[in-house]
Amino acid sequence: MSVYTPLNEEQIIEILSNYSIGKSGVVDGIKEGITNSNYFLKTSVSEYVLTIFEDDNVNLDFCLNYMEHLARKSIPCPQPIQTNSNDSYILYDKKKLAIFSKLKGQTVSNAKITNEMCSQVGKVLAQMHMYSEDFKKNFSGVRNRDWFLNTYNKVQGELNKENASLLDEEIKRYLNYDCKELPTGIIHSDLFRDNVMFQKNTLTGVLDFYYACNGYFIYDLAITVNDWCTNSTFKIDHDKQKSLIGAYEQVRRLKNIEKKEWNTMLRFASLRFWLSRLNDQLFPTDGDLTTVLDPDHFKNILKDRKNYSDKLE
Amino acid sequence: MSVYTPLNEEQIIEILSNYSIGKSGVVDGIKEGITNSNYFLKTSVSEYVLTIFEDDNVNLDFCLNYMEHLARKSIPCPQPIQTNSNDSYILYDKKKLAIFSKLKGQTVSNAKITNEMCSQVGKVLAQMHMYSEDFKKNFSGVRNRDWFLNTYNKVQGELNKENASLLDEEIKRYLNYDCKELPTGIIHSDLFRDNVMFQKNTLTGVLDFYYACNGYFIYDLAITVNDWCTNSTFKIDHDKQKSLIGAYEQVRRLKNIEKKEWNTMLRFASLRFWLSRLNDQLFPTDGDLTTVLDPDHFKNILKDRKNYSDKLE
Repeated sequence: MSVYTPLNEEQIIEILSNYSIGKSGVVDGIKEGITNSNYFLKTSVSEYVLTIFEDDNVNLDFCLNYMEHLARKSIPCPQPIQTNSNDSYILYDKKKLAIFSKLKGQTVSNAKITNEMCSQVGKVLAQMHMYSEDFKKNFSGVRNRDWFLNTYNKVQGELNKENASLLDEEIKRYLNYDCKELPTGIIHSDLFRDNVMFQKNTLTGVLDFYYACNGYFIYDLAITVNDWCTNSTFKIDHDKQKSLIGAYEQVRRLKNIEKKEWNTMLRFASLRFWLSRLNDQLFPTDGDLTTVLDPDHFKNILKDRKNYSDKLE
Repeated sequence: MSVYTPLNEEQIIEILSNYSIGKSGVVDGIKEGITNSNYFLKTSVSEYVLTIFEDDNVNLDFCLNYMEHLARKSIPCPQPIQTNSNDSYILYDKKKLAIFSKLKGQTVSNAKITNEMCSQVGKVLAQMHMYSEDFKKNFSGVRNRDWFLNTYNKVQGELNKENASLLDEEIKRYLNYDCKELPTGIIHSDLFRDNVMFQKNTLTGVLDFYYACNGYFIYDLAITVNDWCTNSTFKIDHDKQKSLIGAYEQVRRLKNIEKKEWNTMLRFASLRFWLSRLNDQLFPTDGDLTTVLDPDHFKNILKDRKNYSDKLE
């Protein structure tokens, strides 16, 4: 988010009075991030990330609890710092505000992706899936079936013939799909390169749990592969996919039904991001998007996955 | 602890049935550690440390809660993995057993200590002190005033004249001391080199919270300085002390009363470890000590601190 409210010294002192992490500090706006305002916060005690939640749509209790759960299992993710009354966030100026531990490393959105990186991403994704077993809360997510249907209804009148026809076909497939045998649990749902940090080739952070929800594990893997293992012609980079899924399977072995449904999941995963980007492009929300990401990127991925029935061995 | 019960495959499977961290794993005994049995545990999901608490004397709820509290503030410490029923430990074979996240790095007991290491230790100690502000539980600790008195009564008849006289004098000073102006909170109480891990000159772990309790912050600092900043002639290495306390003060500024009481605290901190080592030497407990540490090391430190009234500026 590029448009953020600068916080002045008095405001920082007021916010920090709720925490035991030093009495004053300096903040610096972070340009990355789309729907929230993020700041680096440095107090005498340590460095943190301060987030003001601009969008009320998020199930914040679920997200913060899930992050705490994963952190407790030593998944490297930002940990909500507890307030003096043991809450995970405060209300500040009518908005929810949370302070997180700051992780080392940098996101790799613009870096060259190596097989080794894919391997570490596959491993951490499988660990998150395994660790979701004893997480007791449930949440259908902000990109659930209702969202697909509502967003489809909203955008369909605005599309050209080619797009309308592709979207119709894929949305129908999606809405009619229900496979009870697929293993489910809490999924991250957005493990793109923007949301993973590395330091010297070691994965040091998983970010942005605001799309986390219950879902098929294999769908989460497909979302991840579609971002990390797609080459410039929108095709799967099979070496990278092998590294990512190979490492995933060292931690959690895929069931045959999951392998069988792989291509369908790749299509659903492409559809989701195509649809959300179409929606952002057609109905931009004032001020809360830095850049509208190109929907065609995911249309092209979707077309590739549709014409190429990829199977896992 | 060198004498540990090897855990067999069946036992591991039984233990792991309480957790969501994989269904089977391999363990390997860890030689370090004195009162507990520690094992490396590797499952398909990740690597952990499994601890069996051989000594019932520990206030385990307090320790584990405190570790969780610090981990939530991103102090690098082992985090107790929650069981499927959200407990921090299980009862196994009548003993308490906990599984922790495994930290990177190695302890530096036998490494050359640099000023930079001291600086990082000072910083993390101050962070722990600051973070203890919103930790709600209290515990007087296993090395409290009662322990000093009881242990003194137990060992005094066994000492030669010189030791008896030195101990008498120092114990009296200790028991009569009460300074209400000194800032207090939860202190680690044992931040020796055995309990801090580094990886490539970066502090990656603080271990062993089993002596953590309420106490004077400045006493904790003295315990730490006595181990990290003492040279081979038992004197303070002033460069190291400057690095350690300098970094501490970047996070938490010492009050004048703390500076004034510095020498007294160095003496109390020496006394504590002299006394506990005397006790271990005179009354060894069968099988639960790898090596009896030399009490004279801390007697010499105590004598140095007694004759050298060190003040902080």
